[in-house]
Amino acid sequence: MIIVLKPNITKKEEQVVIKEIEKLGYKPCVMRGVARTVIGAIGDETTHRSLETLMILPQVENVMPVQKRYKLVSREGHPEDSVINVREDIQIGGKKFHIMAGPCSVENEKQLITTAISVKKAGATILRGGAFKPRTSPYEFQGLGEKGLKLLYKAKQETGLAVITELLSENHSDLVAEYTDIIQIGTRNAQNFQLIIAAAKTGKPILLKRGMTMRIEEWLLAGEYVLANENPNLMFCERGIRTFETYTRNTLDLSTIPIIKNESHCPIVIDPSQGTGRSDLVVSLCKGAVAMGADALLVEVHPNPAGAWSDGAQQLDLKRFETLVKEIKPFIQSAGREI
Amino acid sequence: MIIVLKPNITKKEEQVVIKEIEKLGYKPCVMRGVARTVIGAIGDETTHRSLETLMILPQVENVMPVQKRYKLVSREGHPEDSVINVREDIQIGGKKFHIMAGPCSVENEKQLITTAISVKKAGATILRGGAFKPRTSPYEFQGLGEKGLKLLYKAKQETGLAVITELLSENHSDLVAEYTDIIQIGTRNAQNFQLIIAAAKTGKPILLKRGMTMRIEEWLLAGEYVLANENPNLMFCERGIRTFETYTRNTLDLSTIPIIKNESHCPIVIDPSQGTGRSDLVVSLCKGAVAMGADALLVEVHPNPAGAWSDGAQQLDLKRFETLVKEIKPFIQSAGREI
Amino acid sequence: MIIVLKPNITKKEEQVVIKEIEKLGYKPCVMRGVARTVIGAIGDETTHRSLETLMILPQVENVMPVQKRYKLVSREGHPEDSVINVREDIQIGGKKFHIMAGPCSVENEKQLITTAISVKKAGATILRGGAFKPRTSPYEFQGLGEKGLKLLYKAKQETGLAVITELLSENHSDLVAEYTDIIQIGTRNAQNFQLIIAAAKTGKPILLKRGMTMRIEEWLLAGEYVLANENPNLMFCERGIRTFETYTRNTLDLSTIPIIKNESHCPIVIDPSQGTGRSDLVVSLCKGAVAMGADALLVEVHPNPAGAWSDGAQQLDLKRFETLVKEIKPFIQSAGREI
Amino acid sequence: MIIVLKPNITKKEEQVVIKEIEKLGYKPCVMRGVARTVIGAIGDETTHRSLETLMILPQVENVMPVQKRYKLVSREGHPEDSVINVREDIQIGGKKFHIMAGPCSVENEKQLITTAISVKKAGATILRGGAFKPRTSPYEFQGLGEKGLKLLYKAKQETGLAVITELLSENHSDLVAEYTDIIQIGTRNAQNFQLIIAAAKTGKPILLKRGMTMRIEEWLLAGEYVLANENPNLMFCERGIRTFETYTRNTLDLSTIPIIKNESHCPIVIDPSQGTGRSDLVVSLCKGAVAMGADALLVEVHPNPAGAWSDGAQQLDLKRFETLVKEIKPFIQSAGREI
Repeated sequence: MIIVLKPNITKKEEQVVIKEIEKLGYKPCVMRGVARTVIGAIGDETTHRSLETLMILPQVENVMPVQKRYKLVSREGHPEDSVINVREDIQIGGKKFHIMAGPCSVENEKQLITTAISVKKAGATILRGGAFKPRTSPYEFQGLGEKGLKLLYKAKQETGLAVITELLSENHSDLVAEYTDIIQIGTRNAQNFQLIIAAAKTGKPILLKRGMTMRIEEWLLAGEYVLANENPNLMFCERGIRTFETYTRNTLDLSTIPIIKNESHCPIVIDPSQGTGRSDLVVSLCKGAVAMGADALLVEVHPNPAGAWSDGAQQLDLKRFETLVKEIKPFIQSAGREI
Repeated sequence: MIIVLKPNITKKEEQVVIKEIEKLGYKPCVMRGVARTVIGAIGDETTHRSLETLMILPQVENVMPVQKRYKLVSREGHPEDSVINVREDIQIGGKKFHIMAGPCSVENEKQLITTAISVKKAGATILRGGAFKPRTSPYEFQGLGEKGLKLLYKAKQETGLAVITELLSENHSDLVAEYTDIIQIGTRNAQNFQLIIAAAKTGKPILLKRGMTMRIEEWLLAGEYVLANENPNLMFCERGIRTFETYTRNTLDLSTIPIIKNESHCPIVIDPSQGTGRSDLVVSLCKGAVAMGADALLVEVHPNPAGAWSDGAQQLDLKRFETLVKEIKPFIQSAGREI
Repeated sequence: MIIVLKPNITKKEEQVVIKEIEKLGYKPCVMRGVARTVIGAIGDETTHRSLETLMILPQVENVMPVQKRYKLVSREGHPEDSVINVREDIQIGGKKFHIMAGPCSVENEKQLITTAISVKKAGATILRGGAFKPRTSPYEFQGLGEKGLKLLYKAKQETGLAVITELLSENHSDLVAEYTDIIQIGTRNAQNFQLIIAAAKTGKPILLKRGMTMRIEEWLLAGEYVLANENPNLMFCERGIRTFETYTRNTLDLSTIPIIKNESHCPIVIDPSQGTGRSDLVVSLCKGAVAMGADALLVEVHPNPAGAWSDGAQQLDLKRFETLVKEIKPFIQSAGREI
Repeated sequence: MIIVLKPNITKKEEQVVIKEIEKLGYKPCVMRGVARTVIGAIGDETTHRSLETLMILPQVENVMPVQKRYKLVSREGHPEDSVINVREDIQIGGKKFHIMAGPCSVENEKQLITTAISVKKAGATILRGGAFKPRTSPYEFQGLGEKGLKLLYKAKQETGLAVITELLSENHSDLVAEYTDIIQIGTRNAQNFQLIIAAAKTGKPILLKRGMTMRIEEWLLAGEYVLANENPNLMFCERGIRTFETYTRNTLDLSTIPIIKNESHCPIVIDPSQGTGRSDLVVSLCKGAVAMGADALLVEVHPNPAGAWSDGAQQLDLKRFETLVKEIKPFIQSAGREI
């Protein structure tokens, strides 16, 4: 940690700071600059208590951490890419590119099975579908619950697709894990650490969406909760952040692809459907994501988006999904991946 | 709902939209403007499915809801102010102004009791203290848990203060309710609807913090989950939103005071400690909050902030809290309240 | 400056960094920590070139400035408050509190004179009114230009109020200075440094609005352009920042009051009309601003807001302005000011 | 325009609104819904005064425009793509993809000519370089001014590259137009309409950067100022918006590529250097931009970024720029373009 002192303080005031640094277990190292005195506090910031509390002292102007706070998700200690084994035949983070596709909400058997058959034929390997739905209003459709999970399982049996679905409640972790291959933690729960821990403990691969207001460091630290609970199967999923723009529902931050690749060994998945809230932008953003090296896409697909029970405006119909896969193929190849 | 059609579409394309509107249970009302045709869809937006899915149709340019989505928290159907009975002698939302004060985290008996005695003497009526702490990193202090709850209970016995503490897990709702007078839902869980429902079901008064990225409409709708689960004892608490500014930790949005008073009958509480992350700004923001008509304050106070186990930089020491109360008194009176 | 090196780099890579630091005129001071090596670069950051370019080196993880970049606006070198002499009888930043009030745009003589007489009677000392208007669309009313300036001058003659109006073009600086007592730099031009310099050179007091996306440090530095061009008469004016919230037009950041008071010796003025875009919130925000120690208010007032040529939704009518002044008086007194 | 009335208002209050609508030249069309009455105001929103002032009336809940406010930049009235003739041999917006490259600031002849020769060899067709620099602090390097323009002209003579440079002051428009092929309007001046008009009047092609806090509608309207001043040669340039994220300097919003293509006929250029502030992310974002259909790139390149006089951290060195061009080529081809 670096502690910057205010200008013109007395030796005595300086000593108070130095003593506090020592009390918290760091070794102080004083550096007198032209305009300000700076104290380096030597010690492991991830095992010692933060010195940010020193900000409370009137003689302290600023406290700046120098170490990164994440360890297990960091590429520093794990230089090679992690490859997530979803199933014997599905690895995310390797040479093969994957597409997860399916409806926002599971509505009924026909809707789900029709979609599953169609997206599989087009090239998807994983079926997405919400059984428990977090909804802004208590009066909106909250998902079919366990019945939805069973339909996902049925679709999986019939098509051979793997399944991803969202976990909403700590109390459902075992239930959801029974039916799904990947557990999704949604954007509203991205700092619901109790839920993340419950999900991690099932041992299933976890897809951790970025909170709509999360800085990248906070997202990596939320992922740290998964690995620290002895589950190494973590994927990050960018789904747009909240900004002042109103044309799109969120601002999809594709720079997260090279950033997550720099900072972490875990795969990065892009969700352009949530990311923009507009199906007419999805194809273009998929091309960008693929070219930039994303490991997989998560795309919302519905047989009849205009009649969907949730988020119709961002779902592709079956035909447009088929076109999407065709159109991104040359970019997948240029990126050195295969599908 | 208002559906705006794109310019230059055919009668046939228009008919498709009209049929979809009827299928979803609304009555269409066509209005031909100079540049665009607009369709009013008449029907109750809070009981019918949203027409926003129509955005998927290529002939539709925009869909705009006209009704407010919240009902129970709305002042429209409940014109008089709600007053929350925390205890026989503590009502929030009435003429008496209240201050909730105490440490960010409960650390030990001495720290808590010292603080409790001191803040009571200065004028606080409710003791705050975190027993379960949501922390960005898994390596930070996560709170004393049940032991912390017992210390809060002890402080309450000794001082007569009421108690507020945060609920972090659905599985702890009964446990926390046993020890506390008010249950706090924190900013990271402000759209963790399962947790909100669990809290509501305890029947205890709920203090719902604004999510750091929540629009006011979403916050009101999250509050709707409390009232829709038959708990009328809801307070909103503004604690700052996330913006591009880095001088403060968050941007405390004091305009929420008149806005919540306009839109809802529920009390509004202001938390300037979280709101800025800097104790040197707390006094000034408290004056503003009081002048603008806040019903209560939530202030972090610690006997030795520089040594605090969490968020020291934003906690006042005992002496400064005493001064704070003195300094805001004239503003409380000018606002027509008493303390 | 502090330069943080990446872990596990060689001595040779470290030497490259040290040489670059020396080449740019700083004295390096190496500090070996547990996980990382940190180099303090000793030298005056405000006269030397920034070391942030070192971020380009692959062995550098982070570069952190320790000095503040503003000097002349800073309270550090000028501990006492600056008081701005607008006119012999009008000082801003002293014990007397001031209200600047008037229409968004000057529309015609009757509208302006009626408003001027009324706001003066209610307690305002300065008349605001836009003659040159920056408008998002080229098809919106762009202001009366010089004719507007002449009407402002006439209103000043008739009422004795001082005048504030916005400068939009470098080419108008002399013209505007001829008619106005205070030059306003608007939010869209808050980093139009050529305009700020032209305004500063007139010698008139400058009211510098915060850019809607400006960090406080950037705002202070934009103010530095005024003082560095030998005009000491600078006032900062908070008018709301752009956030994700859509209920209000901007988010008025009242925490700027104590922050500007901490960091600078210049007065701080609050504009709640632009800050929220909703006249129904203006009174409440004025109370907050006054209680928190603002030096003046800038409020939009129009005889008939529904018929205003610009921004009607945020303008008070004459009656409501009169009420406003009455309602904030007790708070002005509690804040130790007079009106 | 759509005017939403509050529930439970009287006929008389409704009549007041209707009269105001008529007075402003619109024809009212009343629609009685289940919970609210809605009035459609029929008339051309781009030629009549806005009805948003009606928000001031207590009986009005909301006013919603239905028309788009931009006309000349809109694809609606100009369905085919605009192709900008920079020079006889350089068209932007057609089949050929262009790269604009060069240093952030022009520093001296050697730096500029070395860069120009190198980027030309690698595949760039346009040389960028700042002669007038807008700098956050008055103490930072402000550019070489006219001397910088002359060096750009010299580099153009020697290499045959076209030139783009930023215009900072209305008073320099003729001077800058004399030396450059494209005039850049920077992010801080994106709503400095006087400057945009001055630039438009030179007749030179204009590259209009997005303001760091500009909504897309506002950006399109700022572009409207160019076309409304009889200059059809407009290009939009996305360079990142300001968000809460601190890992990157800005958040580059690549979704603007399909959005500008949907809404406008003008070309879209991407600037990943400003967009992220980190040269290590530039290559990846260029791949994404190209795949998504950008018409050109604007990339900062410097012979020695660590010694650059401004923004070194975001500039590529000559070698990395060469690699960049090689790496994006396959994506340019997959996108159906050539270089």
